[in-house]
Amino acid sequence: MRSAEEVDSRRAVEELKELAELTGGPDGARRVAWTETWSEARDWLRGKLEQIEGLSEIETDEAGNLWATAPGESEKAVLLGGHMDSVPNGGWLDGCLNTIAALEAMRVLAPQQRPVTLRMVDWADEEGARFGRSLLGSSATAGTLVPDDVRNLQDRDGVALPDALKEHGVELDRMKESHRELENAVAYLELHIEQGPVLERMDLPLGVVLGTFGVERHAVRFTGQHAHSGSTPMDVRRDAFVAAARSATAFRDDAARRDDVRATTGFVNVSPAIVTAFNGWCEMSLDQRALDAGVLADMLEKAKEASERIAGEEGVSVEWERLWRIEPIPFSEELISLGDEAVTEVAGRSHRLPSGPLHDAAEMARLMPTVMLFVKSLRGLSHTKEEDTPEEDLELSVRALHRLAVKTMEWAKE
Amino acid sequence: MRSAEEVDSRRAVEELKELAELTGGPDGARRVAWTETWSEARDWLRGKLEQIEGLSEIETDEAGNLWATAPGESEKAVLLGGHMDSVPNGGWLDGCLNTIAALEAMRVLAPQQRPVTLRMVDWADEEGARFGRSLLGSSATAGTLVPDDVRNLQDRDGVALPDALKEHGVELDRMKESHRELENAVAYLELHIEQGPVLERMDLPLGVVLGTFGVERHAVRFTGQHAHSGSTPMDVRRDAFVAAARSATAFRDDAARRDDVRATTGFVNVSPAIVTAFNGWCEMSLDQRALDAGVLADMLEKAKEASERIAGEEGVSVEWERLWRIEPIPFSEELISLGDEAVTEVAGRSHRLPSGPLHDAAEMARLMPTVMLFVKSLRGLSHTKEEDTPEEDLELSVRALHRLAVKTMEWAKE
Repeated sequence: MRSAEEVDSRRAVEELKELAELTGGPDGARRVAWTETWSEARDWLRGKLEQIEGLSEIETDEAGNLWATAPGESEKAVLLGGHMDSVPNGGWLDGCLNTIAALEAMRVLAPQQRPVTLRMVDWADEEGARFGRSLLGSSATAGTLVPDDVRNLQDRDGVALPDALKEHGVELDRMKESHRELENAVAYLELHIEQGPVLERMDLPLGVVLGTFGVERHAVRFTGQHAHSGSTPMDVRRDAFVAAARSATAFRDDAARRDDVRATTGFVNVSPAIVTAFNGWCEMSLDQRALDAGVLADMLEKAKEASERIAGEEGVSVEWERLWRIEPIPFSEELISLGDEAVTEVAGRSHRLPSGPLHDAAEMARLMPTVMLFVKSLRGLSHTKEEDTPEEDLELSVRALHRLAVKTMEWAKE
Repeated sequence: MRSAEEVDSRRAVEELKELAELTGGPDGARRVAWTETWSEARDWLRGKLEQIEGLSEIETDEAGNLWATAPGESEKAVLLGGHMDSVPNGGWLDGCLNTIAALEAMRVLAPQQRPVTLRMVDWADEEGARFGRSLLGSSATAGTLVPDDVRNLQDRDGVALPDALKEHGVELDRMKESHRELENAVAYLELHIEQGPVLERMDLPLGVVLGTFGVERHAVRFTGQHAHSGSTPMDVRRDAFVAAARSATAFRDDAARRDDVRATTGFVNVSPAIVTAFNGWCEMSLDQRALDAGVLADMLEKAKEASERIAGEEGVSVEWERLWRIEPIPFSEELISLGDEAVTEVAGRSHRLPSGPLHDAAEMARLMPTVMLFVKSLRGLSHTKEEDTPEEDLELSVRALHRLAVKTMEWAKE
């Protein structure tokens, strides 16, 4: 195989700019899945792939995912993933950096001989921006999609998801047939911008992802009795908001004491929500995240205990309703080590960190050894046109993914 | 003068029920000021007054307030006040208990000789339920109403306040001429339901009111930076809601440590208010009340200090905007003592307490010695059809007001 230095990371950055020119604009990226602009972006990608020497096939599967294959001595396949789709008014990097870095790796590696097969995949509709279901293409291929759960989804114009899919040649009830694409897959690699502030604050360009957080998401509702702000002495109040405020603080404080977990109060609603009464009712969301299932369960238990203790002290009742949960999805120890090697070779130093957001890699990690690389996000911003990463760091990330692909193919042949 | 025992407190309770029959119903009282039902209630009251022997005149002033006068040896006048108007779906006692207890006192006292003049007044539009301006009639008479401040008020059907007044024979720009009614007034007395839980919790039927709280009402706004709940570690967050929650708790805790003051968070708004982000912005209302101006100022200063300290710790900024303020209005020491005597005579024990809500008495207290009596409210409820007081306590309150009127006339003659 040729040496890793031969990847043209500059070309990848220029191609990112070319794509932004084509499918972005003053208000940001417009590559929302199942739209005309997204199709244009994919046609552009397909055009680039068609120029690569050594690819046996470029095809779209039943879920609308685009695959390119560079056959190796073995049918065992290492996958490089990304997604061309963006949120509306999105950034120039989220998803397409992954794809274009994979394209560059394919460009260098496809013409060479290799011990195992190398494939890249552009997942359809990672963001779920139009219909609200993220990871649509990768979950179909992974087999976790339940078609009936999404059949009635509509976009804001009332277009049904199955009709939008059909316009792009995808039949909802056949999407899961794409699972056959994974038949020989033995490893999945993905590069992504961090979408958080950790690497920037450590002054590091690159990191290796430990896995995606498990999430426990609840609505927490406190019920007391509202009454007039003037006539009710402090010591006889049953103030639901004060109970919620103290609980939110306790949830945050517990998370702040632990290592690399999250606890977030998002929505907050009170009633009667007027200046002349304290509140008899308050609901708020709590989103807890941890990479370790035991830690996550303990956080949830501690939060419930704290809310019940505080509710008792404030003379109110508290109820918890689970809104959503997902288990932690740890990545492969062996591939994490290979990721460290690749990052250290191109950037001098590596750092391991969990992923806050979900990624297509989470769907693949249930089925095969998986790892992701993160590249620094400036100010932690994403899903906005302000999303950015210094070009020299983007170049490092392209080189690191290439090296990781080479190392993973070597690892996979055994 | 006849002895105090001759007031017919049972008749007053029966008249309250008669009024409820006429102007209430299954959804509560319907005596909203400047409506047909309110006019009916006043016609009913006027009919009762016309049967009283010894009244020199019954008249409506330029502000729509209804006056009845029992002349005494001196023109100096003791006033008994109340308001027939209610909120929509209101209770059977708020406002009309005051008026009917005064009616009963007039009925007993008007036929007798007395050292000073005794007058009763039914204030127009205490509640401000239709146009949002409370104490309308009494503030016009007191001289604090600014007609231009209310000229453009509309009800929810778009009817302008001046037009509604006109239908009831009141011209907005002449309302303040009613100030002449106070020319010889030397004391103002008012009975009201407590609208709070204090007397019920002390198992007392009656109390004497020390004055109305001063109020400092602010919007407190915290600004940080929202970001994703997964990707942002706890220690780099600038979470506006956590800062607000900690501040709300601090405001409450400071008030709870002081004697008989209030601090209330009412509305709470956060942004972006979604489950997957912590909040970069939060505004909430703070309503602080105290009977002592120095205490109120200190509470406000302490709250500002706490919010700024917490904002600094949370990496957010905080801004305060005053929404409204009113100074404390203490009642007359001498009349409070007479009130204690009257209450102790009819109920065995008195208790002094501040008033949370404002009352017409607050407008009068700026101009002359004033005091109020409170009668127990069950569960502290008012402004709802569930508002209630045991009938035996209502009877005690009618007797106490009568005794207080007698004592105040004696006091006023000197």
